[in-house]
Amino acid sequence: MKNLLILFVCTFCTLQVATAQTTDADAFFIRKIYDNALTQGRCYPWLEYLCKRTGGRLSGSPQATAAVEYTRQMLDTMGLDKVWLQPCTVPRWIRGDQEIVRIVNSRKMGSVDLKALALGNSVGTGPGGISAEVVEVLSLDELEKLGEINLRGKIVFFNRPLDPTQLNTFAAYGGAVDQRGLGATRAARFGALGVLVRSMTTALDDVPHTGALRYEEGVPEIPAFGISTNDAERLSALLKEEPVRIYMRSTCVMMAPVVSHNVIGEITGSEKPEEIILVGGHLDSWDVGEGAHDDGAGCVQAMDVLQVLKRSGYRPKRTLRCVLFMNEENGLVGGAVYRAESDKKKEYHMAAIESDRGGFTPRGFTCEGDPTVFEKYFKRVSGWLPLIEPYGLRLKPGGSGADIGGLKAQKGLLFGFEPDSQRYFDYHHAPTDVLETVNRRELEMGVAAMASWVYLLDKYGVE
Amino acid sequence: MKNLLILFVCTFCTLQVATAQTTDADAFFIRKIYDNALTQGRCYPWLEYLCKRTGGRLSGSPQATAAVEYTRQMLDTMGLDKVWLQPCTVPRWIRGDQEIVRIVNSRKMGSVDLKALALGNSVGTGPGGISAEVVEVLSLDELEKLGEINLRGKIVFFNRPLDPTQLNTFAAYGGAVDQRGLGATRAARFGALGVLVRSMTTALDDVPHTGALRYEEGVPEIPAFGISTNDAERLSALLKEEPVRIYMRSTCVMMAPVVSHNVIGEITGSEKPEEIILVGGHLDSWDVGEGAHDDGAGCVQAMDVLQVLKRSGYRPKRTLRCVLFMNEENGLVGGAVYRAESDKKKEYHMAAIESDRGGFTPRGFTCEGDPTVFEKYFKRVSGWLPLIEPYGLRLKPGGSGADIGGLKAQKGLLFGFEPDSQRYFDYHHAPTDVLETVNRRELEMGVAAMASWVYLLDKYGVE
Repeated sequence: MKNLLILFVCTFCTLQVATAQTTDADAFFIRKIYDNALTQGRCYPWLEYLCKRTGGRLSGSPQATAAVEYTRQMLDTMGLDKVWLQPCTVPRWIRGDQEIVRIVNSRKMGSVDLKALALGNSVGTGPGGISAEVVEVLSLDELEKLGEINLRGKIVFFNRPLDPTQLNTFAAYGGAVDQRGLGATRAARFGALGVLVRSMTTALDDVPHTGALRYEEGVPEIPAFGISTNDAERLSALLKEEPVRIYMRSTCVMMAPVVSHNVIGEITGSEKPEEIILVGGHLDSWDVGEGAHDDGAGCVQAMDVLQVLKRSGYRPKRTLRCVLFMNEENGLVGGAVYRAESDKKKEYHMAAIESDRGGFTPRGFTCEGDPTVFEKYFKRVSGWLPLIEPYGLRLKPGGSGADIGGLKAQKGLLFGFEPDSQRYFDYHHAPTDVLETVNRRELEMGVAAMASWVYLLDKYGVE
Repeated sequence: MKNLLILFVCTFCTLQVATAQTTDADAFFIRKIYDNALTQGRCYPWLEYLCKRTGGRLSGSPQATAAVEYTRQMLDTMGLDKVWLQPCTVPRWIRGDQEIVRIVNSRKMGSVDLKALALGNSVGTGPGGISAEVVEVLSLDELEKLGEINLRGKIVFFNRPLDPTQLNTFAAYGGAVDQRGLGATRAARFGALGVLVRSMTTALDDVPHTGALRYEEGVPEIPAFGISTNDAERLSALLKEEPVRIYMRSTCVMMAPVVSHNVIGEITGSEKPEEIILVGGHLDSWDVGEGAHDDGAGCVQAMDVLQVLKRSGYRPKRTLRCVLFMNEENGLVGGAVYRAESDKKKEYHMAAIESDRGGFTPRGFTCEGDPTVFEKYFKRVSGWLPLIEPYGLRLKPGGSGADIGGLKAQKGLLFGFEPDSQRYFDYHHAPTDVLETVNRRELEMGVAAMASWVYLLDKYGVE
């Protein structure tokens, strides 16, 4: 009788636990994932290799090819079910000679070189360079007001800073980056000869930042440079005192496109292999720096998520796929090709997580999805929050990632991994984006956070 | 009639708001504090001066005197009601010559110098140095088991690492630091000649860390050194292959105590001047490095809390006091003197916040208090959480700070400012604790977090 009673109580308890969506075993397994990531993680040595042995990996460069081969080989060591390369044809932009951006013959300062980098995809000035007077503006709108009469033959200097009062630095970046992306082509409409853009960083320092611009069809392509925020401040102050002439020279050139690859590895699901959970980053980086935070960190984290789950003894029901996208920085070709092939095969990405906001201490995930499913799925996964909140993680609606955004049409849930954002734009697209700015524990905790979320997604599904 | 109705509705609304503890005006004012701290904060240039112009500021050193004078002058620029120095007599320990810790005549490695720093307060080896065989242990308990027969005439090597699976690195530090604090004196009881301690850091690198040890009365004082974690790993591996002899030399010496000062500034309360809200850090640092995170950051943040509140136009009801304590690192004299004088004057510290965990992105506050009041007060201040949660801040029970802990007897609430902890022990007590490792925005956000909390404490009180 006593035994029967115990059996009854136990059964009742089990039912109780099964009624609630998650169990104590989940908490226990997530703790195991963290222990594994923090003691057996491989992300940091992988990143060390990418940073120090391949270096800056701009699309189409030999370094990008080396990075594809290195990560393919590393995925091959992990005992996955499948590792493959997905071809994609990417632009091949070359920076050329060290850029010159020089204040010439200022009465006050004489001749001064500014810290500058050509913006990505920019045309060069030609070997002789360009010399013209500078006009400072704070927005694209201001260009319209000034008009051709004030801008023809000039160099336009875009100097609106990132808003320092934005707590999330990505919001500050989003509020300023139109100057870099569209400044050149908009200034060219009014006959400007070239463009200088204040670097897209929250720091005041001597580091110039690059990053992509886009030319519009039918508008002359004029050269553009990012200059350091300190130099932007100096130039702006000088312009209040006297007219300033700048000499600028760059030999950038857009070559013929070349074939490159997305690098993909997967653990095939044991019960629902047709439901895919993707975790990814982008393998290309700018040519300056080492692409440590942007986005070497995201790549090695995505790889380590699969490694840590395997090492933790987890056998996924669904297919877990690590995708290292090519050409996020100046074309997004890798993401587009991946999506097109996936759609063609009628794949279903039940979930996708992109890590492309740096290797800093994890704060949680942003989440988006097709409006027809988002509310229901988001509510469901929000139920798992008590399991990840002890690790300082939260979940909130918001954009996911540039490479995976197109998968929204498959009607799964898309997540952006969200680390602390305060330092990111100190390094973003700059020569300072090097391994030494990545803290090993912070990087590993990102792996643990994503692996834990992948585990919950796989175990419970979003529907 | 219509006007009367509006009046009634407005009165009703006001009452509604007054019933809830906080108001929309509070949210608005906290946003203003953040804007001010992120655009008008002075903490970073102050820290730059402390790091680059005074440098390491060990108690009793000329650099510590310079830091006292500098911060006093800066407080004097702020238009406070009162700025003063509080004398305290501090120990004066001097490191002396560059330390030598050398593996001598290993069959495998020959002669190898380890990266080492004498631990703070350690005696020197004497000019001739000490040479002896090394015995590795992982804990103080293990010493007891080995006993005098295995330890007499030896150098004891404490090699228990910080637990990497602890998410909060301070917990990992707490679990290992007994080796540094007590290792020498416990080993001396068994006749050991000297001590090596694995550096108290979560990183595996070549940086040695110092930090205080304590000798017990009646036990011989033997010299002790911290060695880098990489060297600790190498030494441990070598010990598994062959007996290892080490030569160690240091010329540290404890001089006669000297008079130094706590630096204090206050805004006297307009309604309840007798209720004090303290915000502080410690001005002394180790002699190696620049004391940037430990605790230059805490000092300049405490100063900037008052500056930002003044600049935001806030007139406090209670007395806001900034205290920069002397001698936290190797004696805690400043904190003891401050508390003793405060008790003597029958002061009441309604609240105190210490920032001594680095200048990283804020995560919240830990909180403690006398058991007779803690539960009630903690519940009350927890009611303000919705105002600070949007800034990523939380509140939890836990220790406050070494300098303010003694104020608990005055029965107010004590808080420890809690930033992200992952990088702290990379720099703590090490030559790497320099300005360049501090991010300006992260530092300023700490000021904003503490100023917001001080504002709420002042406006509503803890009782």
